[in-house]
Amino acid sequence: MDKKVSLAVIKRLPRYYRFLGDLLDDGITRISSKDLSDKMNVTASQIRQDLNNFGCFGQQGYGYNVELLFEEIKSILGLNKTYNLVILGAGKIGQALLNYVKFEKRGFNFIGIFDVDPNIIGTKIRGLEVKNIKDLEKFTKENNVDIAVLAVPKANAYDIYKNVVEYGIKGVWNFSNTELEKEDGVIVENVHLTDSLMTLAYKFNTSYDFIEE
Amino acid sequence: MDKKVSLAVIKRLPRYYRFLGDLLDDGITRISSKDLSDKMNVTASQIRQDLNNFGCFGQQGYGYNVELLFEEIKSILGLNKTYNLVILGAGKIGQALLNYVKFEKRGFNFIGIFDVDPNIIGTKIRGLEVKNIKDLEKFTKENNVDIAVLAVPKANAYDIYKNVVEYGIKGVWNFSNTELEKEDGVIVENVHLTDSLMTLAYKFNTSYDFIEE
Repeated sequence: MDKKVSLAVIKRLPRYYRFLGDLLDDGITRISSKDLSDKMNVTASQIRQDLNNFGCFGQQGYGYNVELLFEEIKSILGLNKTYNLVILGAGKIGQALLNYVKFEKRGFNFIGIFDVDPNIIGTKIRGLEVKNIKDLEKFTKENNVDIAVLAVPKANAYDIYKNVVEYGIKGVWNFSNTELEKEDGVIVENVHLTDSLMTLAYKFNTSYDFIEE
Repeated sequence: MDKKVSLAVIKRLPRYYRFLGDLLDDGITRISSKDLSDKMNVTASQIRQDLNNFGCFGQQGYGYNVELLFEEIKSILGLNKTYNLVILGAGKIGQALLNYVKFEKRGFNFIGIFDVDPNIIGTKIRGLEVKNIKDLEKFTKENNVDIAVLAVPKANAYDIYKNVVEYGIKGVWNFSNTELEKEDGVIVENVHLTDSLMTLAYKFNTSYDFIEE
């Protein structure tokens, strides 16, 4: 498919996926575009536009088949595959992520966790032994690592990122609160928790009005 | 100011703020719109448009005064004030957030952490004693709580959110992986870590092309 899909649309897909999963859990098999729209707080025309990017799943007068749509979005998102992840940095954020079982339900499996601190190396977190970050290269050779979770302090992030790229890991989930230079063939997804909190502060205070997206 | 500012612009402000802070740390006092654009990977015209929403800070041929712009954005974001936060849920996510000193540097102070688990209540995390969630009402009466961090499982999120609203807390930072109904005068900022990981999976796999925002 040649069509360019905007990142704004892609970022909404996980949300559709979550909502449809909740509907399935509630035994709902069919939903009108209007009901889906009300539930998701997105206009019906927005939903139609978004889903049209990937083919047409709605039928006039019938609405959406929840399971079909769920499975289609799952496949679009690449969630019918599984991914191997390593966590770099076994601090609080790294530990919190490792303990979050939700990710595994979605097919994201943590197969390694690494740190530099000799006091942490060798200890076990949720059954996984913390390894020395020096052994990451060897580990990536022996295991198929899809995604590296960067949960290290900002100061170390760049060097570790360079290693990750050099070892051939193609996905980076970045919690290090710094922007990373783009590298060909490497996908970086940034999580800036502080940004989210600042956005909250803005809305909390502001005399400026804002428009919900 | 009557002007409506889109949420997309607001969400970029923390990023400007971070970049400008880094520049100040490096002793850079002045930057051209082009250099700022290169550094941030946003077009110069986008930057001008964004900043024009809040008044005009750039000068033709001079560029931006880094400190002025930093201070302006700080003030726009409401970061010249401080905020009192309580964490609801002392699990891994709650603990990770409490341990993240960055927030305090930005004026977000954690003044309480609450849980339901009798094994955790009474223990100390970073000097803060975990309180029984039943005492939250009393606590909000005795302390000025601006923001509640919802770090509880999805199943409990709605009930706790209802309490938070009832007790008069006006800001909610939601890590519970569920959408919360809008309430008048309450600002909710959602963090969906799973969504971010699914977006990464999408980019990782996709045969669909996408456009960076």
